[in-house]
Amino acid sequence: MSAMYRSRLLTPGPVELHPKAQEALSRPQLHHRSETAKKVFLQAKAGLEAAFRTKGQVLLLTGSGTAGMDALVHNLFAPGERVLVPVHGNFSERWAKIAQQAGLRVERMELEWGRVVRPEHLESPSGPFAGLLLTHSESSTGALNDVQALARAFKAHFPEALVVVDAITSLCVSPFALEDWGLDAAVAGSQKGLMCPPGLAYLALSPRAIERLKPRGFYLNLASELKVQSTGESAWTPAINLVAATAAVLEELLPRLEEHLALKQAQNQILYAAGQELGLKPVPEVKSPATTCFYLPQGVSYAQVKEAFAKRGATIIGGQGQLKGKVFRVSLMGYSDLYDAYAVAQLMREALGGLG
Amino acid sequence: MSAMYRSRLLTPGPVELHPKAQEALSRPQLHHRSETAKKVFLQAKAGLEAAFRTKGQVLLLTGSGTAGMDALVHNLFAPGERVLVPVHGNFSERWAKIAQQAGLRVERMELEWGRVVRPEHLESPSGPFAGLLLTHSESSTGALNDVQALARAFKAHFPEALVVVDAITSLCVSPFALEDWGLDAAVAGSQKGLMCPPGLAYLALSPRAIERLKPRGFYLNLASELKVQSTGESAWTPAINLVAATAAVLEELLPRLEEHLALKQAQNQILYAAGQELGLKPVPEVKSPATTCFYLPQGVSYAQVKEAFAKRGATIIGGQGQLKGKVFRVSLMGYSDLYDAYAVAQLMREALGGLG
Repeated sequence: MSAMYRSRLLTPGPVELHPKAQEALSRPQLHHRSETAKKVFLQAKAGLEAAFRTKGQVLLLTGSGTAGMDALVHNLFAPGERVLVPVHGNFSERWAKIAQQAGLRVERMELEWGRVVRPEHLESPSGPFAGLLLTHSESSTGALNDVQALARAFKAHFPEALVVVDAITSLCVSPFALEDWGLDAAVAGSQKGLMCPPGLAYLALSPRAIERLKPRGFYLNLASELKVQSTGESAWTPAINLVAATAAVLEELLPRLEEHLALKQAQNQILYAAGQELGLKPVPEVKSPATTCFYLPQGVSYAQVKEAFAKRGATIIGGQGQLKGKVFRVSLMGYSDLYDAYAVAQLMREALGGLG
Repeated sequence: MSAMYRSRLLTPGPVELHPKAQEALSRPQLHHRSETAKKVFLQAKAGLEAAFRTKGQVLLLTGSGTAGMDALVHNLFAPGERVLVPVHGNFSERWAKIAQQAGLRVERMELEWGRVVRPEHLESPSGPFAGLLLTHSESSTGALNDVQALARAFKAHFPEALVVVDAITSLCVSPFALEDWGLDAAVAGSQKGLMCPPGLAYLALSPRAIERLKPRGFYLNLASELKVQSTGESAWTPAINLVAATAAVLEELLPRLEEHLALKQAQNQILYAAGQELGLKPVPEVKSPATTCFYLPQGVSYAQVKEAFAKRGATIIGGQGQLKGKVFRVSLMGYSDLYDAYAVAQLMREALGGLG
């Protein structure tokens, strides 16, 4: 690599680590049943409960965000129950697949990828439904759903149903409020807005979701975790180093969360503005601050775009599923400030300027 | 803590980290789909295949060792199939619980905790069985099973059955050889003999086990992983930092694995000798090098023993299940050399000397 450029991870997860995470990860190994570890666990848990804005509980599971989605579906719904799943990207598609595999009856609502779900889409569904599975930030297309409005519209018809949200690329990136928004459960992951390495899923359960639990499975059984996590332990050995990193990042982030969310919003606007000046067409109907997503310039392949960024030290990512080979994505969800956004905007201009 | 003592983690997992693991963990965040990450993933996978001595495949799952046990049981046996589970400690009990939860018909063979399973115990079981679930190093009691002899005895009656082994505290601690020993599948974890933080399970599948796969589940579905891991990817975002740590440790460990196993054996003998000189009674019938396990001295509580070690900077662990409050365990499975064993032997003398 050229001495001119430092390496930049511009993918929508994993992301550039927060220095507090790196610091926590360089500490000596903790035993997860020690008093120090329990204190750290409870600190991470309380911090996440504040971030999700829940009066219920957050559970920490060792696994990817998908493990968390799997756990929610298997522990909140029984086989044969019917759920509505709007599908408009790779991650909403994942909800549908998990629900199918869990033996639920899945009503897919197909939307063009890049579009968002509108409250009016939920106005006359042929119920009844036990649940609605939503994707807050659909990072495969860069779209952000108004999950509060969607929960309200859905619950007008099905007040007994549970609304479950994938907040994997929205927690600590875009505003979120579990019960205030009428949501029952949500999942996030360590390698996104929390700026830690991958390996932890965070599950938020409202008091209502906790009451309605239908525990299933062994490793991903939420009743086993609920029994012990409020004491700072977990049913199985946790990735305690990542728990400590989560606690350390939240300690710094929570007192200035609003400003941090404003930063993520501003950074994303700067990147979109740069792309649009270059004539690029954004994919999402409503933009998530987690990542930009642009259609490839006419006649240019994703390999060329990736290479143009790589030559300048930057790692970006392409499309997934039906958008593979059609889009590219650049994200500043990781540790970065406003000036980094201007730096990356210039990098985008130089990388893409020579191509189109 | 006194300036006289440095902090020592003497638990049978998590353990003191290998410096190569710490070094790998301090690197900038990798994206798991980058070429660098795929290379690191394949290096860890190949290294683990050498460590398990399998010509089949090792799969890396993000989760605890229990996640790996869960995945093996759910993906190798169908509901209703009958398995034999000798139960003689907390971890063999876990096999039984997982198999039960997975809908298998579980034949429990109860043995006193601390005893090992003998080939003659398997001479006249009332079959047929689809599988035998064994614990190589039962670290709740410190006992080591001769899984090779057990597999031979069992397969003499049930040649079609699968023998599945919990090698969580034996891999890279005690000799192991998957197919040569007649075993079909095994599981280990990152925070034990590999001297990395917790968060990864390693699953070894013999060619025969791969053929016999009956995939189940979503996150812990081994067919999804088999499809992609030979290319250096994984179905879901992996704890890639821990994968890199695993690769780095194995690069150093594998060329001198035999000597390392001799070290673990020697260290454990030094600790047992020190305890026995103090009049302590060992729990296990056959000693695993993963950990010592002693009955508490007469009239002394575990809290007193724990405190006596803690005052000298050392973290140890007590009993689990039916041995809770009856035993204590001291382990040098983590990064340490022969002289550390003498240091800890002296620490044991001073900690326990003042109590009994």
